[in-house]
Amino acid sequence: MQPSVFFYITYTLCLCLGLLCVLFVSYWSSQWRGGFSWDGSALQFNWHPVLMVSGLVVLYGIALVVYRVPSTWKQKKHPWKLVHAGLMLLALLLSILGLCAVFDFHKHFNLPDLYSLHSWVGICTVAMFAFQWILGLAGFLVPCSPLWFRNTLKPVHIWLGKAILILSLISCISGINEKLLFVSAEPYNSLPAEAKFANSLGILIVAFGLVVFGILSKNKWQRPETEGESVHVNLVIAVTGLQKRTFILSD
Amino acid sequence: MQPSVFFYITYTLCLCLGLLCVLFVSYWSSQWRGGFSWDGSALQFNWHPVLMVSGLVVLYGIALVVYRVPSTWKQKKHPWKLVHAGLMLLALLLSILGLCAVFDFHKHFNLPDLYSLHSWVGICTVAMFAFQWILGLAGFLVPCSPLWFRNTLKPVHIWLGKAILILSLISCISGINEKLLFVSAEPYNSLPAEAKFANSLGILIVAFGLVVFGILSKNKWQRPETEGESVHVNLVIAVTGLQKRTFILSD
Repeated sequence: MQPSVFFYITYTLCLCLGLLCVLFVSYWSSQWRGGFSWDGSALQFNWHPVLMVSGLVVLYGIALVVYRVPSTWKQKKHPWKLVHAGLMLLALLLSILGLCAVFDFHKHFNLPDLYSLHSWVGICTVAMFAFQWILGLAGFLVPCSPLWFRNTLKPVHIWLGKAILILSLISCISGINEKLLFVSAEPYNSLPAEAKFANSLGILIVAFGLVVFGILSKNKWQRPETEGESVHVNLVIAVTGLQKRTFILSD
Repeated sequence: MQPSVFFYITYTLCLCLGLLCVLFVSYWSSQWRGGFSWDGSALQFNWHPVLMVSGLVVLYGIALVVYRVPSTWKQKKHPWKLVHAGLMLLALLLSILGLCAVFDFHKHFNLPDLYSLHSWVGICTVAMFAFQWILGLAGFLVPCSPLWFRNTLKPVHIWLGKAILILSLISCISGINEKLLFVSAEPYNSLPAEAKFANSLGILIVAFGLVVFGILSKNKWQRPETEGESVHVNLVIAVTGLQKRTFILSD
């Protein structure tokens, strides 16, 4: 099997899992939790899981792997940088809207904000995401950003990108678990249909996250350096005195 | 700053965070939850968070980065494979003991097992960990394991190793959140001292996990291929027809 065929199978699996996550979380909120509204009621809260799963997990994960699609490698990188940044911005806006939904709901019912571990991890995730987006814009899209800054930022940007996905997964799973402990009509421990369904949503979210990590961890699926980018890297090597190193891949 | 100095600073941070996680979870269980016992009571349950955090997160994370310590690179790899496998086995046994603690507690109080999303993710984590350990033993420690098997297994082993750490983090954070919703003497949403302390434990666990990922994601901190291993890889390349690829590192 050609490596790119294996990539496209994995990528299709990733997209299908992402779609299933969005469908499952929307169905959960509309079928068991009464649907949607923006009036401070419990129906406004229902936007919270839908927007967080869709934005912070699914769209974020898809934006993470956008450079890995082999059919884009022959095209210039810059437009794909814009696609990456655009998808990330959309994911960030959906996440912020998801936070507004829950803060408004709390305000309406005089409930305290940010007390649970879920909320602590969740707010850190969105804050780090916003920080990462601004830093990415300054480092990789603003044309006057200095070379040393880009090259210092790149490994940090890659690590932080994965870290935010891990935090998103943690936030979503702990949030679904918390919600089911609060609201399930029958006790959660009797595992009613709603609990089974929402637990399955949790497993789908985890599976999606792990497939995204699988795509990111395969060196062969990295976008190769193009002519211009290679010159750019060699220039950095010349300027900073870093040495070329040769790696042998056994996989 | 020399790369190895930066490594040792990060590694020390990783060990300190790991130690803090173990101290915090032990203090939480002994100070707020009444201490330990093995009699089916709530005091037996208290072993569960301590053993899972110590085994499935801290010891597992330390075992993951054991090959990255530069002072070991001049030594043969085989003894370090045994250290890696030994630490992983200890982590697995602690995790299984942690599961026994909670199953025994449930049995004693006639509580159902495995209903929450936390438990679904947790049981999958330990099952995948056991599977990974057996597969690792068969692939990398049994001398007669065929070359094609080792080389097919290696990328899967690396990906699954990271996936299990992500699952461990998700399980622990959702578990601490769930426990605080069940047991906090004052309501969790008034954020009593116990909740603040256990939430901080959660943040420490996440920080530890992200530092481990940071260490794993730096190519320069990978153990270099030694003479013998290089020959081994070249042999694989010759047998499988895989091509050498040259990579230029810019960081």
